[in-house]
Amino acid sequence: VGEGDLAQIEKLVDELHPADFADLLQALTPDERRFVIKVCRHILEPETLNYLDEVVRDEVIGLMSPGEVAQAVSELETDDAVDILEDLDEAEKQRVLRAIPAADRAVIEQGLTYPEDSAGRLMQRDLVAVPQHWTVGEAIDYLRANQDLPDDFYDLFVVDPMHKPIGAVPLSRAMRNKRIVKLEDLMHTEFRVVPATMDQESVAYLFRQYGLMSAPVVDDAGRLLGVITVDDVVHVIEEEAEEDLLGIVGVSETDFHAPALETAWRRVRWLVVTLCNSAIASTVISQFEATIEQIVALAILMPIVAAMGGNAGVQVITVMVRALATRDLQPRGSNVWRVVGKEIAVAAINAAVFALVMGTVTSFFFGLPIGLVLGAAMVFNMIWAGIAGTLIPLTLARFGIDPAIGAGPFLTTTTDVFGFFSFLGLATLFLL
Amino acid sequence: VGEGDLAQIEKLVDELHPADFADLLQALTPDERRFVIKVCRHILEPETLNYLDEVVRDEVIGLMSPGEVAQAVSELETDDAVDILEDLDEAEKQRVLRAIPAADRAVIEQGLTYPEDSAGRLMQRDLVAVPQHWTVGEAIDYLRANQDLPDDFYDLFVVDPMHKPIGAVPLSRAMRNKRIVKLEDLMHTEFRVVPATMDQESVAYLFRQYGLMSAPVVDDAGRLLGVITVDDVVHVIEEEAEEDLLGIVGVSETDFHAPALETAWRRVRWLVVTLCNSAIASTVISQFEATIEQIVALAILMPIVAAMGGNAGVQVITVMVRALATRDLQPRGSNVWRVVGKEIAVAAINAAVFALVMGTVTSFFFGLPIGLVLGAAMVFNMIWAGIAGTLIPLTLARFGIDPAIGAGPFLTTTTDVFGFFSFLGLATLFLL
Repeated sequence: VGEGDLAQIEKLVDELHPADFADLLQALTPDERRFVIKVCRHILEPETLNYLDEVVRDEVIGLMSPGEVAQAVSELETDDAVDILEDLDEAEKQRVLRAIPAADRAVIEQGLTYPEDSAGRLMQRDLVAVPQHWTVGEAIDYLRANQDLPDDFYDLFVVDPMHKPIGAVPLSRAMRNKRIVKLEDLMHTEFRVVPATMDQESVAYLFRQYGLMSAPVVDDAGRLLGVITVDDVVHVIEEEAEEDLLGIVGVSETDFHAPALETAWRRVRWLVVTLCNSAIASTVISQFEATIEQIVALAILMPIVAAMGGNAGVQVITVMVRALATRDLQPRGSNVWRVVGKEIAVAAINAAVFALVMGTVTSFFFGLPIGLVLGAAMVFNMIWAGIAGTLIPLTLARFGIDPAIGAGPFLTTTTDVFGFFSFLGLATLFLL
Repeated sequence: VGEGDLAQIEKLVDELHPADFADLLQALTPDERRFVIKVCRHILEPETLNYLDEVVRDEVIGLMSPGEVAQAVSELETDDAVDILEDLDEAEKQRVLRAIPAADRAVIEQGLTYPEDSAGRLMQRDLVAVPQHWTVGEAIDYLRANQDLPDDFYDLFVVDPMHKPIGAVPLSRAMRNKRIVKLEDLMHTEFRVVPATMDQESVAYLFRQYGLMSAPVVDDAGRLLGVITVDDVVHVIEEEAEEDLLGIVGVSETDFHAPALETAWRRVRWLVVTLCNSAIASTVISQFEATIEQIVALAILMPIVAAMGGNAGVQVITVMVRALATRDLQPRGSNVWRVVGKEIAVAAINAAVFALVMGTVTSFFFGLPIGLVLGAAMVFNMIWAGIAGTLIPLTLARFGIDPAIGAGPFLTTTTDVFGFFSFLGLATLFLL
């Protein structure tokens, strides 16, 4: 790319799938990116914008005129268009909207009224709704005659006179039946209706739980508004799994394309949490200064107690957060206490095993008394990790707080504090 | 459920979606589960088995006769049937296979020949392939006349005389065109062909990257074997995101339904790694025993240096592992050094800020010299975290090792060791 052979670049870009071109743009430096956009703006496929990361997309849109953006946006599906527009600043958004043809604009503006991360934002407005009394033949004739219908769809939605969805006919069933068969007799009524205001996390749950390919979206009155297909939900499902686990680790998002200073700032929050945590742990240690002064071996061994408790706790909390997210576990479900009991049993088993091993090794190097204290502190702390690892996420979930966010740092604070306290406390009691 | 009102249980189960029934079974105790299965075995929908967690599924299948399992399995789609059979032990598998009708058995046995986690396992064998020269009308007549075709499908695959796929016609396009239109003129040829041996991770990448709804699967000679639809891939995409992040945390899987002893055993591996890590860190500390003896404040403060480095490093490594998994970053890509540079810059910025804050606070409590040493050690360790956090996953990826597995524990070992070494080492040099 650095070479600047215009014709060759154009040819390359033209052959690339928009997703691959987006990847290429993202791999370039900002300067190279500017150059490629300048050369290729006339052959840029609108879908490319959707595949771009938010940071790079802002940059690319900044290089295009409002008219060009409007042109691109109106060629996209509603949900993708709304996605792009909502990230623009207000003035830019208005400029682009004014340049979009009125009919498209109305649909996009309505899309923007739904809350972010709601079903209304995920759905496409383009769908095929047919009345109950139609036959397969009538539907086929309607599809053939009407040029204004969406290109790709997978179901015919059967609606009543109030435009409420009452059934869905997969295209494959419609095609496999004779023209005289009534759609009513083909439709299945087991589909899940999604209110436009439903949170995207709940939508993803429905799709995953019931293996759905598509679901109709309705307004408050139950009227058919749009359709969500599984490909719209794939990235939501992925994001949800990612967010849960990133929250546990203490990273807010995978900010791969943001500039260094912005990335540094985004990560500050969790580093501040870590700093507070370790400051609390240090305060606990400082209470036992006199003990450490007399037995320096304690300073050498205390990280082991804290680390084992922390790791055992993170294992528990990860399992709990995922079980809560996939709704295998309900915070007030009948199996909650059984699960808590099992996790504490697991913690106790591993605590006993590791305390025995490490206590023996330590006795060998530092003498039996220190070995016994270390073993006892490890048992206490690892069982505590099992208790805290189950109860912290359950309690957060009961109060309606996302259990993933901060569960990890919060947990390791407790295991650090409890680990140092039990180890140094037992040593003060029994070794001095 | 405990009440035992048979008719009511049966009615309840009959109304439940198989996915919900599976959830219900999983929430029960093993005894309750046995009871419900005994009562409901005659109305058990085969799909229920697919929604069950592996541990619970084994239990449920153990309660069924080979004949019943065979009956259930032959009603499922090929990929789901293979999924269930491959988890059975060899003798049980043979008993079930013998009870399946010959035609279904052949298809399932062939499915079992593909490697686990390959495209061949994900695909359905049921698809609709049509010759190139057919028209829309011929295709519709074929679909109507042939009762042996799958219930739900989304594309007609156009094949050449060698049965190689040359195009795909989405059903919606076929329906919207007149009977005389040739399929050849409607088909798009941009579909991605998936070899049956392709790893499911690569399949998931294709679907996510190009927003595919379905893709044809071919054998070594390029002949059409089956089709993978996006719903088959959803759980793969989710699993991949989950595995990456679980690997970083050091949990091998979310073993929610396994019994306590088995769960304890599965978690031992990462606890052993943690133990080794903290033993190494302890060895480093023990080298500075004499220094700590003289300045106990060091023992109080050293966890702060290690924790800040560890957390900063985990943030970096998480971003890197996800970028490698989503192929935003290639281990030998042209942007590797830019990315590494950016991450080290981010680490340096945050290192400077936090070292300044914490050095000042420490000076206030423990005097300026200790504050300076702490600040310097924090800068070194957090920059080291940036370097290790980028280079460890990149190096693993270059050698073809999954960078997610163990990256976190490996990283924190280096930040613990480097943190203790730099803090205690600087103190030994300048404070004694």
